[in-house]
Amino acid sequence: MAVRHDIRLADGRALYYYDSAPGQDRSAPDLRVDLPEAQTSSEMRWNPLLRDYAVVAGHRQNRTYRPPEGLCPLCPSRDGNHTEVPAADYEVVVFENRFPSFSRSSAETVPWRSDAPFVSGPAAGLCEVVCFTSDHNTPFHALPPERVRTVIEAWADRTAELAAIESVEYVFCFENRGEAIGVTLSHPHGQIYGYPFVPPRFFKEGQALQHHLERTGRCLQCDLVKAECDEGVRIVRESEHWVAYVPFAARWPYEVRLAPRRHVPDLPSLDDAERDDLARSYLAVLTAFDGLFDDPTPYIAGWQQAPVRGAVDPDRVAWHLAAEVFTIQRSPGKLKYLAGSESGAGVWINDVAPEAAAARLRAALVRSGG
Amino acid sequence: MAVRHDIRLADGRALYYYDSAPGQDRSAPDLRVDLPEAQTSSEMRWNPLLRDYAVVAGHRQNRTYRPPEGLCPLCPSRDGNHTEVPAADYEVVVFENRFPSFSRSSAETVPWRSDAPFVSGPAAGLCEVVCFTSDHNTPFHALPPERVRTVIEAWADRTAELAAIESVEYVFCFENRGEAIGVTLSHPHGQIYGYPFVPPRFFKEGQALQHHLERTGRCLQCDLVKAECDEGVRIVRESEHWVAYVPFAARWPYEVRLAPRRHVPDLPSLDDAERDDLARSYLAVLTAFDGLFDDPTPYIAGWQQAPVRGAVDPDRVAWHLAAEVFTIQRSPGKLKYLAGSESGAGVWINDVAPEAAAARLRAALVRSGG
Repeated sequence: MAVRHDIRLADGRALYYYDSAPGQDRSAPDLRVDLPEAQTSSEMRWNPLLRDYAVVAGHRQNRTYRPPEGLCPLCPSRDGNHTEVPAADYEVVVFENRFPSFSRSSAETVPWRSDAPFVSGPAAGLCEVVCFTSDHNTPFHALPPERVRTVIEAWADRTAELAAIESVEYVFCFENRGEAIGVTLSHPHGQIYGYPFVPPRFFKEGQALQHHLERTGRCLQCDLVKAECDEGVRIVRESEHWVAYVPFAARWPYEVRLAPRRHVPDLPSLDDAERDDLARSYLAVLTAFDGLFDDPTPYIAGWQQAPVRGAVDPDRVAWHLAAEVFTIQRSPGKLKYLAGSESGAGVWINDVAPEAAAARLRAALVRSGG
Repeated sequence: MAVRHDIRLADGRALYYYDSAPGQDRSAPDLRVDLPEAQTSSEMRWNPLLRDYAVVAGHRQNRTYRPPEGLCPLCPSRDGNHTEVPAADYEVVVFENRFPSFSRSSAETVPWRSDAPFVSGPAAGLCEVVCFTSDHNTPFHALPPERVRTVIEAWADRTAELAAIESVEYVFCFENRGEAIGVTLSHPHGQIYGYPFVPPRFFKEGQALQHHLERTGRCLQCDLVKAECDEGVRIVRESEHWVAYVPFAARWPYEVRLAPRRHVPDLPSLDDAERDDLARSYLAVLTAFDGLFDDPTPYIAGWQQAPVRGAVDPDRVAWHLAAEVFTIQRSPGKLKYLAGSESGAGVWINDVAPEAAAARLRAALVRSGG
């Protein structure tokens, strides 16, 4: 459903154009001939008290920070602004991040260490940037469904390709939107992280899905979709293939889980009908979020896919794909901050009842005509 | 070491004055005779996918939000501003939060529910506010050690008293400082949460401590203190009874763990010499944080104590007390935001190497003359 053209940027990084139809010329070379290869030294360090990794990426301290609009590095290249994207226009483009949190080249600079309690090694994953449109000022929810369909193709393709890399244990496609959550580039874009370990939230989720499957013979996410549809009050939108609901135990003021009705482990497993429906469903969820307040709503959106491999669910039969979309905005002008309880203890206090959040999201969707 | 006077506020909430010496008159009554009893309906809801609780506290949406200084509710009462503290002056005062995230009275309004996958109940814990000084403009690190000693007495006393409440499973003493992390009242104060469950971070930490004890016969935190002292590069400050270090796998740009050399489970277990030393050590750590940047550093500080009781470590022999102090500020004017990787996947990316963070904190401490 999408045509891919591959090129290399001047410093050797890979770039992939995804187009909805063949016939585009994507051969323009990167004219930044002097672009030096960025030095990366990402390290993962084991925390024995919490039994998880923290990643130290000191080189990222100097990354690009809120450039003026005329110098956006994600816009197409033109005279006077040679950007990360050599072409004069594009639909969807993916490229390796110049300031990555994870980098396979870290293996060359970061040593392994294993004298307990100090255990660390190179964070030899991969970080890619996904630009959803060449238009600097069109937010994701204003894209046409056909474009979102191409984004979905890109996500699925990147997921499959990154999963084939030996050092990658988890592929996470996500989007951060809004200065309020620290987004330093306003061009509509997302990111794809190929983690060299299974992130702790997904490790825990995998254990819960596996445990439920063993105990009941059923999928917990399938059970949740059914229970939410039966109860109805937290449903934001239902369609033939997808259900969007505010979880019963939502952490965030406005939080939606978007799950396919069919039990599939990841984005590449979705069929054409599910992808078409997803384009509309995902747009509807983002439209609902953006209709909550007068100003654009800051949000984080991410895909929970099955780990690439691993001990908990090696055959990937227990996992059920879902997207999670949430905002830190709790009311006009007021943000939900992660303070002592959340950041210190790991306990989220939510001021908005999930049932009220769902009602407001449904109302925002009705107002938008969606 | 501290004298306590108990009173009741006009709406029935408890208030405790802690003074360094007897002889203070703390009998002033709350003159806000019409203060209505606040309605609370805190609910804890089980998330079966992550196997933890989220707390829904809808009544908090309307809590006091950045009042003008003349109307600070934490200053001593005076004509024209009858505050939460009836006395005309105080040293340290603790009182029940009027807008609590947890409340024992929730048991009267929130029903239990247990039709899986929907499991929930009243969040019947307790939330208290600790004011460190009556002076609105004196930050914690500028308090004299004698005052901090009284704060420590208050923390220890509250810990013991809250732990005796049947529905409380964990006592967490913490402080949020700075508008950048969402603090809505600028008067120097902290909070104490009596959680009706063990928070997930501390549940995980308890498991790790218990596991290490069973496997090696030693305490993991004792091992960490020894290893950090041996290696030296991440030490911020050592004293007779306490060691402050940046953890090898720190999550935050600047993060310090302050642990007693002696293996004790909680604040009430500290002896007088350890409390005296803690007053100076804790002040030194906060002074170092505040010396990092030109402006006051926003920070979160919290005490990791043994759970009150529980299955993992019922005799409380595995736990080792520690304070955690960290800031979200990564450089002047730049904050560390929790975006897709942190909030979505649970993986922290730290732009500041822990060894560099420790060096800068040591330098800030030297500059302060500490």
